[in-house]
Amino acid sequence: MTISMKVDPPVYMFEKRKVIDEYLLKFMPDITKYPQVLHEAIHYSVMAGGKRLRPILALAAFEACGGTGPDIYRAAVAVELIHTYSLIHDDLPCMDDDDLRRGKPSLHNKYGEAIALLAGDALHDFAFRLTAETGNTKIVLELAEAIGTDGMLAGQMADMDAEGRDLSLEEVTYIHVHKTGKLIRGAVRIGALLANAGKKELDAITVYGEKVGHAFQIIDDILDIVGDTEILGKPVGSDSKNNKATYPAIIGLEKSRQIASELIDEAIDTIRTSVSPSDTFVDIARFIGGRQM
Amino acid sequence: MTISMKVDPPVYMFEKRKVIDEYLLKFMPDITKYPQVLHEAIHYSVMAGGKRLRPILALAAFEACGGTGPDIYRAAVAVELIHTYSLIHDDLPCMDDDDLRRGKPSLHNKYGEAIALLAGDALHDFAFRLTAETGNTKIVLELAEAIGTDGMLAGQMADMDAEGRDLSLEEVTYIHVHKTGKLIRGAVRIGALLANAGKKELDAITVYGEKVGHAFQIIDDILDIVGDTEILGKPVGSDSKNNKATYPAIIGLEKSRQIASELIDEAIDTIRTSVSPSDTFVDIARFIGGRQM
Repeated sequence: MTISMKVDPPVYMFEKRKVIDEYLLKFMPDITKYPQVLHEAIHYSVMAGGKRLRPILALAAFEACGGTGPDIYRAAVAVELIHTYSLIHDDLPCMDDDDLRRGKPSLHNKYGEAIALLAGDALHDFAFRLTAETGNTKIVLELAEAIGTDGMLAGQMADMDAEGRDLSLEEVTYIHVHKTGKLIRGAVRIGALLANAGKKELDAITVYGEKVGHAFQIIDDILDIVGDTEILGKPVGSDSKNNKATYPAIIGLEKSRQIASELIDEAIDTIRTSVSPSDTFVDIARFIGGRQM
Repeated sequence: MTISMKVDPPVYMFEKRKVIDEYLLKFMPDITKYPQVLHEAIHYSVMAGGKRLRPILALAAFEACGGTGPDIYRAAVAVELIHTYSLIHDDLPCMDDDDLRRGKPSLHNKYGEAIALLAGDALHDFAFRLTAETGNTKIVLELAEAIGTDGMLAGQMADMDAEGRDLSLEEVTYIHVHKTGKLIRGAVRIGALLANAGKKELDAITVYGEKVGHAFQIIDDILDIVGDTEILGKPVGSDSKNNKATYPAIIGLEKSRQIASELIDEAIDTIRTSVSPSDTFVDIARFIGGRQM
C-alpha cells in the first residue's frame, strides 16, 4: 500500500462513528441540570466533531475478540471523553495556548479559562465513572495507566520540555508514543480486556495499538505540512510556526511517509496472524495510513 | 459539648496521620523517574502537610465496619490525592489565584502554571488507579460520584457563580455541602463499602459524613475570622478580603458556632446508635468540632 493514496474511511468507521455519537449524547451529563454552564461547555467540546477513532478502535477490538453486551459503549465513550479532556487542558493558555480546535474557538476561548479547566476535570472524572460502571476494574486500571505519568502525561511533559530545543528522532518518538500512542494503545486493550481476550489476542492487539498509534502521530506531522486546512479543520503549518519537533522536520517527508507506511503494514500483519476476524482492524489501519484529516 | 473549647486531636488521628503519610510516600510515583519535575511537584503538594482528615475518616469507617486487609490504604490515599488535586487546581490564577497553601508557595507559584495543571491531572488520574487496584468498582464509582459535576465540581462551580453576589444561607450551604462535604461523605462511604458494610451501617456512616463535612466547612469559615494565622498556616480574614460568602458573614459567629455544634452532636448520635465500635468516630467528630486548624 502507499499511504499517499487517499483511502476513504471504511463503512465500519462511518457507521460506528454515528453510534458513538449517540452514546456520547446518552452518557454525558444532562445539559439542563446544574451546573448548566459546565455541562454546556462539556457538550460544546465533546460534540465539536472528531473522527471518534479511539472509541471505534475500542469497539473493533471488543468485537474482534468476541465480546458481547452493551458495556463496551461505556468504555468506548470514556476513552473519547479522556481524549477531549486532554485536548481542552492542552489548549489552555499555560499550555499550547490554542485559540482554535476543530475549526471552532477552543473551550477557554469561548467559556473562559476557569470553565475550561473544570470541564476538563469533569470529563476526566466522568470517564472513570463510566469505566467503573462496567464493573471491571481491569478497564479502569488500563485507562488510568494509559493516561498517567508513565503514559499520556509523560508525553505532555516531554512535549513541554522540548520547547525551543532541537530534538533527536528518538525524543520525538518518545513524545509521539506517549502523548498520542498510549491512549490509542489503551483503547484497543480496553476493548480486548472487556471481551476477555486470551493472551495471544491481547498481545497482538497491543502491538497493533502501538504501531497504529505511532503511525497516526507521524501522519499528523505530515498533514501539518501537506494537509488541507479545510479538511483538517485546523491551520496547516502550526507545528513549524510553533517550532514543534516533528518527523518530517528531522528526517524529511518521504522518509516519514515510509516509516508510517511500514508501521501500518506491521500492524496489519500482526493482527492478521493472531486475531480473527481481522478485517475491521485492517480497514481501520489502512484508513489511518491514508487519512487526509 | 462546646466547640469553642480546644479539643486535642485524638491519639487515633495522630497515629493514623503518620501511617497515611507513610502510605502516601509508598504509593506515589517514584520521584527519580521521568517526568521527574512533575513527580517532584506532586510530592511537593502532597507532602506539604495537612491533617489527612479524609483518609483517616475512610480508615475509621473501614475499621468500624469490621474491614480487614491492606486495600483500604490504597483507597484512603486515593481520597487524599483527590483532595490535593482539587486544591492545586483551585489555587490556579484562573480560579482563586492563591499564592500560598499551607504556609508555603502554592504549586503554580513554585513550579509554574503548566506543571501545576498537569500535577493536578496526574493526581486525579493516580487516585483512580489506586482505587481500581482494590479490585472493587464500587469504590471507584463512589469516588467518581463524590467529585463529579453533581459533587465537588458542582460546589466549585457554585463558588465561582457566587463571586460578587450576596448569597442566602441556602446557597452557602449548597457550596459547603458540595465543595467540601461530598468528598468527606465519599471518604467514609468508601471505607464502609470496602468493608462490605450492611445497609444500616452504611446509611449511618453516610449521614455522619454529611453532617461532619458540613460542620467542617462552617468551622473553616469561623476559623477564617477568629483563627490563629500560625496554627492555620494561612492568613485569617481571606474570606472577607475575597468577599466570600460564609456562615458567620450571614448569620454571625455565635449562630454559626451553634449550628456546627449541633451538626457534630447529630453526627455522633447517628453513629452511636448504628455503628459499633463508634469511639473513634466520636473522637474524630469532636476533634472536627473543636479544631483550631
